[in-house]
Formats: sequence, C-alpha cells, structure tokens
Amino acid sequence: MSLQNLKIPTPTPNESPSAKSLISSLSLTPHPEGGYFIRTHTNPLTIPSPFPGQVGETRPLSTSIFYLLTPHSPIGHFHKNRSLIVHTAVRGRGRYVLVHESGKVETFVVGCDVEKGDVAQWVVEGGVWKGSMLGEGVGELLITEVAVPGFDFSDHEFMAKGRLADIVGLEAAEELSPMLRSEDQGLISS
Amino acid sequence: MSLQNLKIPTPTPNESPSAKSLISSLSLTPHPEGGYFIRTHTNPLTIPSPFPGQVGETRPLSTSIFYLLTPHSPIGHFHKNRSLIVHTAVRGRGRYVLVHESGKVETFVVGCDVEKGDVAQWVVEGGVWKGSMLGEGVGELLITEVAVPGFDFSDHEFMAKGRLADIVGLEAAEELSPMLRSEDQGLISS
Repeated sequence: MSLQNLKIPTPTPNESPSAKSLISSLSLTPHPEGGYFIRTHTNPLTIPSPFPGQVGETRPLSTSIFYLLTPHSPIGHFHKNRSLIVHTAVRGRGRYVLVHESGKVETFVVGCDVEKGDVAQWVVEGGVWKGSMLGEGVGELLITEVAVPGFDFSDHEFMAKGRLADIVGLEAAEELSPMLRSEDQGLISS
Repeated sequence: MSLQNLKIPTPTPNESPSAKSLISSLSLTPHPEGGYFIRTHTNPLTIPSPFPGQVGETRPLSTSIFYLLTPHSPIGHFHKNRSLIVHTAVRGRGRYVLVHESGKVETFVVGCDVEKGDVAQWVVEGGVWKGSMLGEGVGELLITEVAVPGFDFSDHEFMAKGRLADIVGLEAAEELSPMLRSEDQGLISS
C-alpha cells in the first residue's frame, strides 16, 4: 500500500479514562519506544547467546511483556532487536510497519477480528526495523510479545535519523518520519 | 475455589456457524487434545534439548500455534509438556485448570477483559498437567501458545486414568474427569 495512506495518529493531550483503567489493571509503565508495558515473565532457563560477537554471554530462553498503545501514546517508535519476537493481539486494532535492511517495507493491520482480516499473531525476525501505531478511532491496542531468546538492552537499537532515508529513500522516509522517536526525527537527509 | 463449581461444558452436537467461520479463517484443524489449532511458526534457530536424558537431541528455540475451543469442542484435555508455554488470549473467555505433581490445583478464568479480572497472558511451566474449557455461554476461546523450547511429540503426555486420582485424590478426580480424554476416563480408581 502507498505509505501516503498510513494515517499516523497524533497523540491526544491526555490519557483517556479507559486507557488509564487498563494501565492500572495491568500495572503498566511508559516504554522508551512509546506506549506502555510490563515484563510479565522471564524464563529461568538460560542459553548461550546465539548472536555473533557475544561469546560467553547468556540470554534467558524467553521474556514476555504486555505492550499497549493508547490515544495519548499511539506510536511504537522504529527500533530493532536481535531476538525474534512473537506478537499476539489481545484487544483493539492497530498497524505495524516493518522495514527490512533490504529496503522492503511491509505493513499490515493487527487486531482480534480475524474474520475481517486482522492479523492476530505475527512474528518479527531479529534485525527487522519495527514501528507500530494505534488504529484510527480505536481506544487501545493491547498485545503480548514473547522474545526468543529473551530481551536484552544490548540487543536493542532505535532507528537513527538518516538511517531510514538510507534504507527506504527520502520520500518514504518523510512519510514514515512521525514514527521515529522525536529525537531521531529532524534532518531526514543528513 | 471448589471444584464442584467448575461447570465443565457438554459439547454441542454440531459446530456453530461463527466457530466454523473462525476455523476457516485461520485454517484450523482438530487437535488431539480437543479443540482446533494450527502451527503458525517454527523458530529456525535450534538449541540442544534442555531436558534430562535427551543427549544429542535438539529443539527449535520456539514454536507457536493458534488454539481454539468451541461449543462443539469445548474441552482441552489434561496433558503435560516438558516445554514451558506462554499463552495469550485473543478472543472469548474460558477456564484453565492446572494440576501440579505436588497435588496443588490452580484454576483461573482467561480472556481479554482484564479490567474484569480475566487473565490475558499466562505461563504454564513444563511438567504441569493442563486442562482447559470454554466459558459458559461463550462462543469461542481463541488463544496463542508459544512453547519454549519448541514443541515435540516426545515431550507430550496425556493424563492417564488413575494418575489424576493418585495426584489429587478420588473426589477431586471425579469432579475433573470430564476433562480427561474419553479414553483416559473410565475407572478413576484403578
């Protein structure tokens, strides 16, 4: 689909009462990527890190979180992980945008209405840039993420300004720039 | 809670139209445990099996499925796996019953209405007997399961008749017996 039709939401000034209720029920806190989250499980089994250049390091076999986008925090900013992550929709609807280093851009609607075409379970492989946004007029997008092997900050990277344009070209980068963290926006063509 | 209030559902004679629609949308097939499923992902990364007595065997890092209970197939029969499984609710409501080898029985309502107390994400550790049932008057329970390490038939075991009574005692085993596969029911006190 044309990236011009992406409808990237603008944050509302305040959190809605229903979002506040959900945040409270699940004890969520703000995520550096945008939205809210809570680490729900860390696998007690550990394995040697499977990632290159990490001799001697270990990872838990898996880690799991809840992740929530709301009208006040409707964007999950572009970033990548080394781990593969299995995502499942619990409530609401939204859109994911995946940018591969090859330049390929995938985008799809996620949610629980599978008969209508929502994607309810999706895998993002390590090394793929990932961004997400709340659906237009939707109250929340609540998902589970299971990272295998488990998440580690050293495996995480935000998409830097300029990098997006290098990968997808200037025009597409301009369309997608609201999905970068504000500190990663600015001069797309650096 | 008292196991006498479990309300284990009786299967309807035929599959409902909405269940058929969901089964078709996700290309589900009947699961040996009851309900329906589809393997959605097999992690290409493999690790040595972490389970005792399996020297030289490997497992994929993870496998993922959709799993569905319906009015016509409303029970996930008692079984256990060696792998830990992270479950997430996508649609509907149901109840899980976990039987530990220690004799402890846990039960909780799963679903997407977290503000009302539904459990939307739950972990079942390896070695714990697991059974599930559709909620009373509910049209479906659709979930995701991520097994870490990935599922293998050699790690799977159905609860045999007599075993349940050994673990939880005769009275509780009688209450739970509809959740055994029909071939595992019969003489509880064998």
